[in-house]
Amino acid sequence: MSSFHPDRDQLLVEHVLAALGNPVRLSIVRELASSPGERTCGSLPLEVTKATATHHWRVLREAGITRESRAGRAKAVSLRRADLDQRFPGLLDAVLAATPPAREP
Amino acid sequence: MSSFHPDRDQLLVEHVLAALGNPVRLSIVRELASSPGERTCGSLPLEVTKATATHHWRVLREAGITRESRAGRAKAVSLRRADLDQRFPGLLDAVLAATPPAREP
Repeated sequence: MSSFHPDRDQLLVEHVLAALGNPVRLSIVRELASSPGERTCGSLPLEVTKATATHHWRVLREAGITRESRAGRAKAVSLRRADLDQRFPGLLDAVLAATPPAREP
Repeated sequence: MSSFHPDRDQLLVEHVLAALGNPVRLSIVRELASSPGERTCGSLPLEVTKATATHHWRVLREAGITRESRAGRAKAVSLRRADLDQRFPGLLDAVLAATPPAREP
């Protein structure tokens, strides 16, 4: 059984923004962006429970940010960078370029 | 009493993304972007209850997307466009440029 992946033309910017607007999911996207290609989900350093991780993977996939496939018994995931760049030019680059806030003095 | 507004340097991209990742708030931001300057909150066409609108105004303000002030007995609101553009270059432009999804055939 394969999981739902929205078509590129059907991506909604508010879903993409909401999916990116979470520190765990944003860290996943940064990690995927830093090493193009597929990664197994277990290879990403996530400090959350398996159930929480599963929720975040689903939100990212259903928003159209990631693509999942089976890699043997593991789940592999990749960033849909080309789809996102074509559908929402500049958005992912701007998000990835965002810096942390300045430290309070 | 004045409401909390985060300093530009303290804005968090995940808060901004989460605030924008909602259709009502995104429509508010689009409306504010289309007519620079202050608007009274009541002048924006929102099809939600007053309590819901108040919630959305607060989320936008606390994320650093809008600035609120008093305009007599009304509340005035403006987009913090310069702050957002300086803190997260290209982000707001990419969001505002996003188009709706293609219609299903």
